[in-house]
Amino acid sequence: VSTSAIRPGGRSERVRRSVIAATAEELLESGYEGLSLAKVARRAGVYYMTVYRRWPSKNRLVLDAVIDLTRERVPLPDLGDLRSDLRVYFRTMAEAYAEPRGAAFVRALVEIADDTTFANELREYWQDRFLVAEELVARAVGRGELPSSTEPWGLIELIAGPMWMRLLMTHIPVDEEFLDRAIERAIRAVS
Amino acid sequence: VSTSAIRPGGRSERVRRSVIAATAEELLESGYEGLSLAKVARRAGVYYMTVYRRWPSKNRLVLDAVIDLTRERVPLPDLGDLRSDLRVYFRTMAEAYAEPRGAAFVRALVEIADDTTFANELREYWQDRFLVAEELVARAVGRGELPSSTEPWGLIELIAGPMWMRLLMTHIPVDEEFLDRAIERAIRAVS
Repeated sequence: VSTSAIRPGGRSERVRRSVIAATAEELLESGYEGLSLAKVARRAGVYYMTVYRRWPSKNRLVLDAVIDLTRERVPLPDLGDLRSDLRVYFRTMAEAYAEPRGAAFVRALVEIADDTTFANELREYWQDRFLVAEELVARAVGRGELPSSTEPWGLIELIAGPMWMRLLMTHIPVDEEFLDRAIERAIRAVS
Repeated sequence: VSTSAIRPGGRSERVRRSVIAATAEELLESGYEGLSLAKVARRAGVYYMTVYRRWPSKNRLVLDAVIDLTRERVPLPDLGDLRSDLRVYFRTMAEAYAEPRGAAFVRALVEIADDTTFANELREYWQDRFLVAEELVARAVGRGELPSSTEPWGLIELIAGPMWMRLLMTHIPVDEEFLDRAIERAIRAVS
């Protein structure tokens, strides 16, 4: 189900929004293991079949919720220069992860990624992030801040990789100094 | 319990080795959730109290096993130049993760990292990895391959971060081409 095909403001869109919101709340309350389509339907106040028809699996539902909430919570900034855009983008991401809801979503994403039967849907989530990276880099190339050969995801991985390694593995603090330095290094590495 | 304080080859060391091996097997068979000190003791053929005295918690035991197996499976190479050392080190790491035992350990490490009451022990695991990074960078600085101002963990994060983000989150393949490029970029970024 492509979310962009749904007319905004219609009943269908209202149902979608309340189901996505209920998914976020359930995930926060029960975690990924405890979440079920039935619980989400009950919380959203809609029939189980209404949820099931659009999101035939728990992973499908969680992933759509993660796509939605990432777009909403971590939008692509457009401040007129590359460093400012990257700074705001990654600071917002780290702040979103510091909130219980953000952390619950990232953990769910890591769990879903382990499920190899779900590779296509996982790719869909990241496709959405790749597009953001492409837009950000295209603007910077247009302003002459990056070489036109810059591989957008390569740049993002150099900043996001060390950041997620800290947040998920080493637990070394992610502060503004770390992010600023990571951004400088990433730009130097691809230039 | 400092593992290095134990005389190698003694009975104490033999017990330690069999408990660590049993932990690895249990983790592979039952996963982190299913693992218990009692099951590990049974598999290792030792008394529960023998395990409990040295490893008073499941996290402590799993972490010691991860430290041991990382040292054994992903040793620091010494090939005479920085690029070769980094290449072999990270290829071996990616290969170890491709094995079921390696993946089980990394997942356990991510789960343990979520437990904030376990911050000191987690730091101990990474301390072991920081020392490896320091030795690797010190040698390269000695050969004039890196500036003496190089922050060892900063260099490692620029390669390991994008690698773990692929393995745990995006599932973009980690191949030799990716690792070689990540290594070149990391060296450029810190130079």
